[in-house]
Parts: sequence; structure tokens; C-alpha cells
Amino acid sequence: MAGNSFGEILRLSTFGESHGPAMGGVLDGVPAGIWMDLEEVQRALDRRRPGQNALTTERKEQDEVRFLSGFHPEADAKGKRQTLGSSIGFIIENTDQRSKDYQAIHDQYRPSHADYTYEAKYGLRDHRGGGRSSARETVCRVVAGALAAQLLPADLRIMPFVERMAGIGIPAEARFDPKNASLHITGCPHPETAQQMQAALESLKTEGDSAGGVIACRVDGVPAGWGEPVFDKLSARLAYALMGINAAKGIEFGSGFSGADSRGSIQNDPFIATGQTSSNHSGGIQGGISNGMPILFRLAFKPIASIKQSQQTVNRQGDSVAIQIEGRHDPAVLPRAVPIVEAMVALVLADFSLAQRIQQISK
Amino acid sequence: MAGNSFGEILRLSTFGESHGPAMGGVLDGVPAGIWMDLEEVQRALDRRRPGQNALTTERKEQDEVRFLSGFHPEADAKGKRQTLGSSIGFIIENTDQRSKDYQAIHDQYRPSHADYTYEAKYGLRDHRGGGRSSARETVCRVVAGALAAQLLPADLRIMPFVERMAGIGIPAEARFDPKNASLHITGCPHPETAQQMQAALESLKTEGDSAGGVIACRVDGVPAGWGEPVFDKLSARLAYALMGINAAKGIEFGSGFSGADSRGSIQNDPFIATGQTSSNHSGGIQGGISNGMPILFRLAFKPIASIKQSQQTVNRQGDSVAIQIEGRHDPAVLPRAVPIVEAMVALVLADFSLAQRIQQISK
Amino acid sequence: MAGNSFGEILRLSTFGESHGPAMGGVLDGVPAGIWMDLEEVQRALDRRRPGQNALTTERKEQDEVRFLSGFHPEADAKGKRQTLGSSIGFIIENTDQRSKDYQAIHDQYRPSHADYTYEAKYGLRDHRGGGRSSARETVCRVVAGALAAQLLPADLRIMPFVERMAGIGIPAEARFDPKNASLHITGCPHPETAQQMQAALESLKTEGDSAGGVIACRVDGVPAGWGEPVFDKLSARLAYALMGINAAKGIEFGSGFSGADSRGSIQNDPFIATGQTSSNHSGGIQGGISNGMPILFRLAFKPIASIKQSQQTVNRQGDSVAIQIEGRHDPAVLPRAVPIVEAMVALVLADFSLAQRIQQISK
Amino acid sequence: MAGNSFGEILRLSTFGESHGPAMGGVLDGVPAGIWMDLEEVQRALDRRRPGQNALTTERKEQDEVRFLSGFHPEADAKGKRQTLGSSIGFIIENTDQRSKDYQAIHDQYRPSHADYTYEAKYGLRDHRGGGRSSARETVCRVVAGALAAQLLPADLRIMPFVERMAGIGIPAEARFDPKNASLHITGCPHPETAQQMQAALESLKTEGDSAGGVIACRVDGVPAGWGEPVFDKLSARLAYALMGINAAKGIEFGSGFSGADSRGSIQNDPFIATGQTSSNHSGGIQGGISNGMPILFRLAFKPIASIKQSQQTVNRQGDSVAIQIEGRHDPAVLPRAVPIVEAMVALVLADFSLAQRIQQISK
Repeated sequence: MAGNSFGEILRLSTFGESHGPAMGGVLDGVPAGIWMDLEEVQRALDRRRPGQNALTTERKEQDEVRFLSGFHPEADAKGKRQTLGSSIGFIIENTDQRSKDYQAIHDQYRPSHADYTYEAKYGLRDHRGGGRSSARETVCRVVAGALAAQLLPADLRIMPFVERMAGIGIPAEARFDPKNASLHITGCPHPETAQQMQAALESLKTEGDSAGGVIACRVDGVPAGWGEPVFDKLSARLAYALMGINAAKGIEFGSGFSGADSRGSIQNDPFIATGQTSSNHSGGIQGGISNGMPILFRLAFKPIASIKQSQQTVNRQGDSVAIQIEGRHDPAVLPRAVPIVEAMVALVLADFSLAQRIQQISK
Repeated sequence: MAGNSFGEILRLSTFGESHGPAMGGVLDGVPAGIWMDLEEVQRALDRRRPGQNALTTERKEQDEVRFLSGFHPEADAKGKRQTLGSSIGFIIENTDQRSKDYQAIHDQYRPSHADYTYEAKYGLRDHRGGGRSSARETVCRVVAGALAAQLLPADLRIMPFVERMAGIGIPAEARFDPKNASLHITGCPHPETAQQMQAALESLKTEGDSAGGVIACRVDGVPAGWGEPVFDKLSARLAYALMGINAAKGIEFGSGFSGADSRGSIQNDPFIATGQTSSNHSGGIQGGISNGMPILFRLAFKPIASIKQSQQTVNRQGDSVAIQIEGRHDPAVLPRAVPIVEAMVALVLADFSLAQRIQQISK
Repeated sequence: MAGNSFGEILRLSTFGESHGPAMGGVLDGVPAGIWMDLEEVQRALDRRRPGQNALTTERKEQDEVRFLSGFHPEADAKGKRQTLGSSIGFIIENTDQRSKDYQAIHDQYRPSHADYTYEAKYGLRDHRGGGRSSARETVCRVVAGALAAQLLPADLRIMPFVERMAGIGIPAEARFDPKNASLHITGCPHPETAQQMQAALESLKTEGDSAGGVIACRVDGVPAGWGEPVFDKLSARLAYALMGINAAKGIEFGSGFSGADSRGSIQNDPFIATGQTSSNHSGGIQGGISNGMPILFRLAFKPIASIKQSQQTVNRQGDSVAIQIEGRHDPAVLPRAVPIVEAMVALVLADFSLAQRIQQISK
Repeated sequence: MAGNSFGEILRLSTFGESHGPAMGGVLDGVPAGIWMDLEEVQRALDRRRPGQNALTTERKEQDEVRFLSGFHPEADAKGKRQTLGSSIGFIIENTDQRSKDYQAIHDQYRPSHADYTYEAKYGLRDHRGGGRSSARETVCRVVAGALAAQLLPADLRIMPFVERMAGIGIPAEARFDPKNASLHITGCPHPETAQQMQAALESLKTEGDSAGGVIACRVDGVPAGWGEPVFDKLSARLAYALMGINAAKGIEFGSGFSGADSRGSIQNDPFIATGQTSSNHSGGIQGGISNGMPILFRLAFKPIASIKQSQQTVNRQGDSVAIQIEGRHDPAVLPRAVPIVEAMVALVLADFSLAQRIQQISK
């Protein structure tokens, strides 16, 4: 229960501190014989990488994944490699650690960061860049998620996008294609909204402030029957996976909080055919199990805690002090969180897809 | 990964279909030597029991828990029993199963129920009252949660209450004590709001309709340091536990969705002393670990799917049919969900409290 | 890690103290749609039941299993029931607990029993009949094993038998059919040896002494490919399962200890066809994975610790005392351990058979 | 259940194929704040390393472990590093892979190797040096075990040694100190026997043949109370851990197989003081839990399957062929298995030591 593993049949165990030598992990439970595109994994990493544009941290990491096991040595014509059924080990070296940025906060607790809580938990902490609490940890989730995605049906598509950021949201009546999330640096697929978000972020950055927002996600192509009663409902496992992403503070499926104010005769989704309902207030999940309709959820992120304004806090001695955070930080976590959301959804779905292969068998 | 177990060190495994002979479970990992009040467990069950008042289902269950193992045979003067360190087995017999109510829906899928999804998953289903998908399953959660609560510090208090129901919410400026949730049959601790909710529910019941709502919860007395990086954040495990409750569709911690629209300079919680912050937008959790402030969350429930109006659906043959649900159903799940929320929080916290005993040791 | 659960995909969690109200368990992970013969489970229990004949304890338990969940309510013509995919809960009531037999040892530690170790572990113990440490616990293994066996291929046959007991073994040159183990009350399928064993046991019983022995087992019909690298080798998981049976003190596969004295050129099993070797020194397991040949192992049991002779021990105060054990005890555990061995092998194999369904898939 | 993880609270997940880029693992669950000697880990690795002397494979690996996470950056005066409570990631690069040695057996199954079984399991295999089935995998066990050992009480001492090899055993009446196992290249602490073993091995090597044997182990200083009922008995978990080592074919605790032929009045261990018995036929484990006496077990290894004689086998097409194994192989696995046995025992004991911290608590 030390918290560094995720999944049941498909199980990821990760390691790495922000400013240590490397991040990495082991993905176990991948069936044998599957041809995988490892370049695709690198591309997923690239989408998460810092230093890509004006909105992201200036930290320059190559974030190059090195696979250490799990694949047959012989590649096919397209460079794909076949899984051996053994555990897949991988590392991503940390190449650009400016630890000295963090010397100043060695003895101070950054507000709404994990500095104090880690120290309360462990009695000590690696103060350099948050150590294990840093979002840099998510680099391993992206690697594993990009592998997991290759276990899923070809027509299953996970489409997260930035729906709200810095108080600006895609208008209810706007039309857009969620697959376009990566076309704009904000991760918002609606061009006008994306531009407004960008302007708002730049303004916040100038002020040394930060923004939160909401990533919405639609998953097409999930067959009916995924998810497990009673504790491992599809919604419960997705909530578990997604609320474990740094800065996530809320999640809702389908109509979620607004649907809670409605009534059954309106919220119920009438079947119009087997596996098809005329509305989708349930967000594709009924009784904790997928019903064949698109999975829909929204994930709220708090404004990033690292701001460049002076803040009030205490130090390890309990004295009140003013703190000034240096280092390299994004004004919002959301654009780079899009591929992380995609990865966690892929891990959950791939795990359930494997589980489902043994839930209903004829002996 | 079959979904009927919850927890890591403290682990609950449950069984039982709504209309089978009995519900039950095994709670493993309870330390030895703890004096437990088993009457308290029965009282928690009584708070969840149906047939208590006009708002709840007419199903009359005694819901008497029978403990089969795990306790030393000798009770103390107050009737308390000491844990042996062995697994605690328990059952609750199902005494009032009117299965014939369900004959009509043998071949039809109730909208927004688990009928179709279970059948898609398993190829067959126990149609009587939802079988394993019935909320009757939560009776085992309440038993285990009431045991888990007795592992927690004496000053730790879990206080869930109905904050919104049938579109009616406690006014923002209202003053009330969450500990009073059980004083009114709605589970709402603010008397005026409670009365309005009751009236609204009675009106919906007359119409054969149903309501959703929000259970808010405050937990006092959680020490700093509970929760695990990186996948098992306190918020992630609570979300997992709570989103696994029937009809739960959303959860948020602290400022949650509304905080996502704010900015870091406002949302950050400045420390004013060690383990104390002047605001609590984080809801008592920073970096996934408790910071010593009250834990705050809100849990959204959809309107109950069983309504007494005619609805459109399909049958197993895929034909469109009108369905009329009989049986005994509450107009809202929330009043009876309050003790279930309490139980799941207790299970998560007790699990982390045990984990924390081995996270920081001097050899 | 509290020790009361076994298995990964197919997972059994048990509870119950020897002299508490009931024993029971939850078997989770059984696929849906399998027709099961529940009478067969009762028959397996009957084979393990005490009070059957002169060699077994005089305790008279009906040992009637009651299934509480997991099966569709409608039986087929033969009385078989179909699994729902939900967890299977079951209990066996303890009907004949003569707790007063144990009052004398309330404060004394029976030599080579678990009295002292449980107290060292937990700080207290249920002294009545060993509590959780009693072999009565195995009744739940037999129930779960008899269910697990029904998940295995029809031609897979698990054949444990008593090979040695009270110092008497089946002669090396003897011919016998292991399937005949249940024909004699000793569990030995070789009639002449069985008779000698029985005489030896009766003699020991008269002396108030006890015997140990060896249960050998042959499993036919295990397909090649079961077992997992690297920690979960088939041999490792079987050893884990079988060494967890009360009084088991050693296990060997194939040539085992004697093969350790041999050399590679003799011990290696040459392939004579795909999945067929001319010798079977490996006992059907190579690299931790089944190779299609019969699985062979031998399991050593120590003499039962409960003897009716006066023994030297200490009490809870640390004083030397003579102890005289009363209660009802078999002179050897082996005859009744045969169905327990069968059950544990079935649980391990069924777990691997499910795992193997997802180890090699074409996407 | 993919088999590459071991342990419950202290959990090791490993990866790596024999001829892939690197071996490695993640050790999770190590408490925070423990000062660890990482040089000690390297020394344990050195004891296992090939290419050390005439008896071991000529493969020259540096086997240098590189720690990637889990330790505070600041070392103390002796170079010790403090655990952070986060997962410990590590890798060992494979530097001397002569894959071409294995081209010849690309399509042939080496007798009593895992070639056929892996292919039956996964549908494909990495033929280079056994891939995941190679004993090279155990390098990760040694790293993790050497870390785990530093969680154990200072006076706990794990002392495995080669007791029998190539048919030569330490005489029953011989006196020797098991701590001297590493003084001779055979791993046998009795000098005369060690010399005979060495001569026998050299002779076998000349013949292109191989030897098996027995590693005995004594563990001093295990406190009473470690191990868990009912499935996770100390003996069961040790058997699981040790039978998962390559080539292990049998294990016995205390009197084991020979004790099975004895009687209760002889085998029972009378208590002479609290936690002290006059004999130790139980091998320090009663009812599956340590009783404070030395833990004693013996582990049988089959002769190494790689011999340099021509052998009969089949190829992938099912044709009978003669096979001649090239590559670099030890004549016996035992000398290098001694540190692996030590490591696995350390992992099991450290896991139980952590578990025991939460089994008996006063609230």
C-alpha cells in the first residue's frame, strides 16, 4: 500500500524523484504477442514534455524513454516490436535538474504544495523540486498509458481536451471536435476559446499568478460490459486513476453535479436499441459498468500552487515567514495534463478489457 | 480484480445478491487486542435500514448483523469484545424478499439501471431486485465501516450530511451543525431546508418520480500525513471509495469545481502555524496527503433510476417496449446513503492509519 | 497481508475460529455462466469430515455448507446452478463445540502447537481448540477447492494419496492406482500398505501418540503453459498453497531431494515429442511452467502435535508445568488432509488457468 | 498475477531479459528515515556475480547496481543514505551479452529448460540465454534482498550454506560455522567437504555434466510472532519465495521429510522457557508463526540443465533432433545461489516484520 503501483491485471509500478537521476517504471501483465509501436510512446511523451512553448515551464527535458525489457529483439518492417509477456521496464533520465533553485525553500513549506504533508508523513523530504510529489512523476504514467492504449480495440478513442481554463470555458453552443485538442498549445479544441485562454494565461503569467480549469473527456468505442461490481465500478476506478493526478480536485460523470438537481424522469436514459440510449446523462456508465455509449467525464484542476508572488507560510521551526518561490513553473497544469488524463484512462480501460476476457467464459 | 474487495491493509470482501439468502463479508487486517462495541455496528446498520419512515422503501428488513468470527468469546462489563487479529466474518440474512415483484422485468432492461450492463458483462443476470447491483449490497459496507471507525483516533469525527436534494440546498449563509444530520429523516442538518426537502420528496413520490442531490462531508481530527503518493493519494482513494457507491456521479474536494475557475493567489492556503492554514480551499489534502485541516468533500448522486412512471426501453430480444417498474423504492437515495458515505470514509481512513504506522519508523 | 486470503484472479478469503459460531468464506473471481454441481462440493466436504471412522476425531460435525450468493436461482434438471460472476459466499456452522475441553489449557502452551506463537503475535488468543490456528479452518479450503475444480478442464485429474504414514510406505515396486485413495480410511490406495498403516495408527492411538507421513500427488491433464515467471512459478505457488496446510513441513517436485544428488545428464528430461518427455524428473514443471507431463509432488506432514501423553511445557507466567491434552484428536492428519491437498491444488491450477486466458492474446 | 512482483507490504517488482539492455526493479514499501549502506548492496551483488572463479560461468558482468530513486541526496559521514519512503528504483546494465551463442538453439528446445514451456505459454520466446527465464533475473532479488536486510533487527542473521553438492554432503557429525559459507568458492563452510565438492564439480565440468545439491539455512534472531495465519504462514511464504528460485525442486523445514516418519512424542518440542524449546524439530515455526527459536530449512536444487553433452530433443516443428548447448554455464547453481537464498529470506522476513508492526496495537 505504498502507493506507487496502479492497476490489477495490468499493473504499473513507478519510481523517481523530480531531481534524482531518473524516472521509471515496470508495466506488468501485458499479454504476449502484441506488436507495439514504441515510437508512438515517445510521441505521447513529447506531447507532455515541458519547454515546448511560451506557456510551459522552461525546464528543458528530452524526456526520452528507454525500454529495458519486455519486447522481442526483432522488429518488423515498420519498426514495431512484439511483446514477450514479460514485464516491461523503462526509464527516462532526468537531464535538466537545477536543484539550486530549491535551496531557498529547504526549510520552508510552500503553500498548497506537498512540502509540509510529505514531511509530516515521512519525517523528511527531498526538497528539490518536490521530489516524489512533483508532477514530473506523471512522465511514467504517459509511457505506460501509451503502451496500454495499444491493448485497446482499434476503434476505441480517448479524447480529453481543455474545456475551461483561467475562468474561460467553451461556450455551451459551440461546435468543435475534441480530437483537435492538440492543435492549440492550450489543449482547447475550440479555436476562439483557445485564443482567449492563451491571452488569460499570459496575463496571469505576467502577474506571477496561475490558473485552474477543467479537462473534459469523451471516450468512444468502449464496449458494453467493462467495469466490475461493486467496489471496482468503471466510474470508481476512473475517479481513482484521475483524482491521483496532481492538482485534480473534482470529477463528474455524465450530468454529474448538475444532474443531481434534476429528477429521475428526466435523467434516466431510455434505451432505443440494445446498447443504445436516446440521451446519455449516465455518461456511458450504468451500475458501474459501461453500456456501450460514449464515456463522458469532467475533471477539475486547481490553479497551480507555484506562483511568483510573495506568500505567507511557516518554516520547519514553526515561525511565520514570507516565501518567494523560484524555479520554472507553468501558469496552468492543464495543457500538459491532457496526455496524462489520456494515459490514465488507457490504463484503466486496458485493465478492465483484460479482466473482461475472463468474466464470461464457457468452460 | 473481480471487484468485491476493498482496501489494502484493512481489506473488506463482500458477497450477496439482493434477493439471495444473505449478504455478508470478511474484514481482514484488523489488529488484535482492540475492544469493539458491536452494538454500535448494529446502530449504524439501523440508520441505513429501509422501512424506517415515509421516505424510504417499504421493504422491511431487520438487517441484523451476525458476527461469525474475529472476536474473543469473553466480553467486558460493557459487552465489548476484543479483536483476535483474525478475519471478521459476518452475515445479514435477507428476510423480506418479494421476488415476484421482479418477474415482469425478467426480460426487460430498466433504464439507467444495471440490468443491461450486467447482462452485457456476464451473459446472464439475477433479475430479482438487481441482484448484486442492488444498493442492498451496501449493508456490508456499513458493517465494515462501523468496525473500521473503531480503529480511528477517538477525536476523529466523520460528519456527512445531505446538503442538496430535489433541487433544494442549504443556503450559503445558513448556520448548522453537520453532526445533526441524523435528527431529520432527510439527513439534512438544517431544519428549515430539511422540511423543504421532505415536502419536495413527498411531492415527487406522489408523481412517481425521484430526486438526486449532494452529500457533503467534513472530517475533523485527521492527523497530517495520511494518504500515499502517487496513485494512492487520500483524495484518489476517497474518490474511489465514494464513487463506488450506487448512484454516485461526481465528487469534489475543498473548492473543487468552483476553485478551478479561481487563481493560485486566491486558492492557495497560507500556513499560519504548523499544520494550520488560514483558508481551506484544499479541503485538508495537499499533494494527496492530509495536512491536519478538516477534510471536506461533496458527493453528487443522480436521481434514483427506479421511478413509477412508464418508460421506454428494449427487451432482451431488442424490441422496443414500455416498462412499468414495480417493487419498493425510495424517492431519493441520499438519506440512507449518509451512513454509507460515513462507512466508506472510515474504511479508507482506517486503512491509511494502519499504513501510516509503518511509513516512518526508526529501526 | 493479514493472511486469510489466497489467490490472485480467483481469490478466496476465509474466516472462522474452531469453536466460534461458524466457518466461512468468499470466493471471488469465478467467471459467469458456469454450471456447477453444488452436491459435489458437499461430497468433498464429507471426505474431509471428522467422525467418519475409528481413525478420526470423535468430533461430530455435520459440516454442511450453505451457499449464500453467487449462483442464479434457477437450477437445471440435474440440480446444477449457474454462476453469476458475483462473489460466492458460504458458511459452515460449527455445531459440536465442546469448549470446556480446553479450559485446562487456558494458560498453558501445548508443545508444537500454535498456542504460544499466536499469543506472541497477537497478545491474546482464543484458547478453545486452537481458534483460528485449528485445522478446522481447512473446511473452507475444501469448499472453495471443490468449486475451483469445476473451472478446470474435464480431463484434468488431481490425485493425492497417502504414500507414507507412521513410518510405513508403499513399496517402490508396488503397483496401484492413485485414484483409489478414498477406498481405504487411511487414504492409501495400496491395500496391503493401507492395512499396515491402519494397524500402526491404531497402535499409536492406544499409546496416546501420533504419526506423520507423506501425501504424494499426481495431476494429469495440465496443459503446457500454466504458471508464471518469475516469482509465481507453478512450483512456487503450489509450494505456497500446500505448505500453508496445517502440519505440512516439506515439499518436493519430481525427483526433488533425491534428484539433487544426481547429475544433469541423468536428470534432464529429453523431449520425445512436442510436450512429451521420456522421463519426468522435472515433475511436469520446467522453468516454473507446466510442460504437459503429469505434475508430481510429495508433501511431508509432521506427526500431529496433540498427543495424550503428559508433556513438559511452560504456562503464561513462564513456569514449567506438565500438560495433559484432552479433546478429540486424530492420530494422524493425513487421511483427512487428502481432500485438502486436492482443494489447494485445484485453487492454484484454476487461478493459473484463468491467468493463462489473458497471457497470449491476439488483439 | 503476471508473476514479476513479490511481497505484500514490502513489494518488489522486477524486469529484464538475460540478453536485453538491463535488469532492474522497483522496491516499494520501504519506510522512510532509515539510513542504508548502499555499498553493502553492491557487495551482495558481487557475491552472486559470475566470472569470479573456475567454477562459475565465464560471462563477465560488472553487475553494478545503479540506484535511481528513493534516497535522500545527502549522505552521512560513512556514505550512508536515508530512505525517503518513496519507491526505490534500480537497474543493472547487461554488459556482456554474447547473443550469437544462442542462435543455434533458436528453434530447438533445450531439455529441462524453459524454452518449450515459455513458448507454450506465450507463443513466442526470447531465445537469447533464456530471456526472462534466465537465472540472471535473480540479480534483482539480490539487490532488493540486501536492502530488505537493512530493515531487519541488527541481531537477526540469515546464514545459508551449501550442505550437499554433487552427491557430497557435510558429514552429520562435522562441526562448522555456517557464517563461513563465503570463505570457499563452493559456498560450503566445512573445509574438507568443500574441497571434495570442488573436486567433484571440476570433474563434472570436464565431462560436460552438472551437479545439484542442497542449500541449508539457519536464521538466528527472528522474534516470536512473525508469519500470518492461515495462508501466509511463515513456512508457506518462505517456501513460495525459495521455490521460485531457478532450479529449486524441494524444501523442508526443521525435521521435514525425516520427521514425517517419526511420532508426536518424539517430534514435539517441549518448552523449557517462554520462547525456548529443548529441541527444534519444528525449525522455529509452529502454527505457521515463528516461535523465537532458529529458523531451519533445507532447499534442494536440481542439477543445472545446461550440460555440454549431446542431448535428444525436438525442434519447433516437432522433429527429433540432437542438441548441443553452447554458451557459458556453471557446473552447479548452488554456490551462486547462496546469496539469492539469503536475499529471498530477507525479503520475506522484512515483509513480515513490517506486517507485525500493525498486528497488535493499542489504539
